[in-house]
Amino acid sequence: MTRHSPVRIALLGAGIFARDAHIPALIELQDTFRIVAIYSRTRQNAEAAAALVPYGVEVTTDLEALFVRDDIDAFDVVLPIQSLAPVVEAALRTGRHVISEKPIAPDVETGLSLLAARRNQVWMVAENWRYNRSFLEARAAIERGDIGQPVLCHWALPVVMTPANKYYGTTWRRDGSFQGGFLLDGGVHYVAALRLLLGEIEQVAAFTRQVREDLPPVDTLAASLRFRSGALGTLGVTFAAGENVETAITITGDQGWLRVYRSTLEINRKGDTEQQTFQDRGVRDELAAFGAAILDGTPHRNSAEEALRDVAVIEAILRSARSGEALAPQAIPVS
Amino acid sequence: MTRHSPVRIALLGAGIFARDAHIPALIELQDTFRIVAIYSRTRQNAEAAAALVPYGVEVTTDLEALFVRDDIDAFDVVLPIQSLAPVVEAALRTGRHVISEKPIAPDVETGLSLLAARRNQVWMVAENWRYNRSFLEARAAIERGDIGQPVLCHWALPVVMTPANKYYGTTWRRDGSFQGGFLLDGGVHYVAALRLLLGEIEQVAAFTRQVREDLPPVDTLAASLRFRSGALGTLGVTFAAGENVETAITITGDQGWLRVYRSTLEINRKGDTEQQTFQDRGVRDELAAFGAAILDGTPHRNSAEEALRDVAVIEAILRSARSGEALAPQAIPVS
Repeated sequence: MTRHSPVRIALLGAGIFARDAHIPALIELQDTFRIVAIYSRTRQNAEAAAALVPYGVEVTTDLEALFVRDDIDAFDVVLPIQSLAPVVEAALRTGRHVISEKPIAPDVETGLSLLAARRNQVWMVAENWRYNRSFLEARAAIERGDIGQPVLCHWALPVVMTPANKYYGTTWRRDGSFQGGFLLDGGVHYVAALRLLLGEIEQVAAFTRQVREDLPPVDTLAASLRFRSGALGTLGVTFAAGENVETAITITGDQGWLRVYRSTLEINRKGDTEQQTFQDRGVRDELAAFGAAILDGTPHRNSAEEALRDVAVIEAILRSARSGEALAPQAIPVS
Repeated sequence: MTRHSPVRIALLGAGIFARDAHIPALIELQDTFRIVAIYSRTRQNAEAAAALVPYGVEVTTDLEALFVRDDIDAFDVVLPIQSLAPVVEAALRTGRHVISEKPIAPDVETGLSLLAARRNQVWMVAENWRYNRSFLEARAAIERGDIGQPVLCHWALPVVMTPANKYYGTTWRRDGSFQGGFLLDGGVHYVAALRLLLGEIEQVAAFTRQVREDLPPVDTLAASLRFRSGALGTLGVTFAAGENVETAITITGDQGWLRVYRSTLEINRKGDTEQQTFQDRGVRDELAAFGAAILDGTPHRNSAEEALRDVAVIEAILRSARSGEALAPQAIPVS
């Protein structure tokens, strides 16, 4: 495998997150990456994305042509859930390095088939929350024993998903064609954060509901969680909230507690609370890690298996709500 | 039934909550109540309680003798969970008015047998959280539609239950002889508050755990809740917390949200948050309501059926955790 520096990367997809997050991060990391091409189904979208790049970038609507070129080292696949998996599979089969957006796949079965298409390349699933500095520092605090043994965690996420939210406009998120709808799309982030902090989730028991007609198939969940460590947890999510409220992951330990937001961490021990603030640079940091993995073989946090474990937890929550039984997430083989 | 004013009341039990909460409230309400006797198994405890009353009060260790006196209008039963039900049953059979501590009984079956012992008197179960002014105002806000339709609620209660907590000393709470331990004793309060705010809970799916050896049989729970209204919720409780953290019941509606603590209410609508503070006078207010029910026939919030519905929800949570199934709380007949 060539280790060409900077890594020549092609962006497959030119939607909101490609333009707002991936392109700015790739530009910032220009010692590591050079965007050589941007694909979109419509040339207009590809051109709009290319216009954000301060150097010349090819635009194309011909995906297959990109896959057979030998001057591309890596693909960054930023496509809707419905079309992501077949493109990731084709990209993996080229043997080039791949970073693909979360969720890795709309269900565990599809995700497992992607694992089978993997070659000997770096494949990272873009779960930027696993590179969130506030969460990483919270995890370090737990590992240091700052709050003793974690006993109970709770987190609720009320999200306003109206036309005022930029993701509402992406109709593919609202067409009800994949399990969980926004609960999968957003939910893998929340599971990734919880697993980062507290380790594997062994069992879930949940209810789900569709409150809003325009958010099929479900938009609200309440789940009880049992972690392998023995800690218990609750997770509540709704995309039918009328007003945003930022809520923390709160973890109660037998020696103290911590509350972690995406940019703030509070730790309480012996009655004293310490607060730290962080800039959330998860997308930039994960792309830097992708570059380091390609160029130097550095390990990274975002393996396909990790991403598939996040999907497995959401799938178990959705199934538990349908069956009325506590369920274990499907086991994902260690790579 | 005599309506003697002030109501001549005998206190059965002289423990922490009798001394710290009931006696001060009964003294404050001296136009309504006169404490005529205090029973405890040990004369010393009864005398210590009587010493708190600014007028002469009989003390006795003979419970049966109190039940046959005709100069007592009402009994206030403040006994441990293990000995509460038989005393309440005997008190009910005298036909006198009864206020008895929560939980009404250690399980639904025992509670139902108490209903059968009821005569035509006022019987209130002392659930002071149903008289908490902050919760009552939150309920009024929900009924007014301040946050639109409630969609999701979440609440977690980390409680420090060490020798520093006065209830830790009451060994009956820690002997593991009734289902749920502190999760029943404290849990009925939490369920009462949730039911007051959001109505009946139709289904629960939960995990439980015993973290601390000295808090049998279980001290931690994580539960998903489905309300009859369609709202979903999560409830997390642990008595194994290392540090106290006050947490709110947070209710997300499709038009706004509210957070309610025992003495504070925050309501957010159209991005603006209003905050109100309240004094928690639940015990005083419920005893006043007990007096008004006896003297004037005024309806009150604390029927035996309401109290038994709280127990039924906790019992369903404990059973769900054992069976791995989502369960409906046992139905309690309307009186």
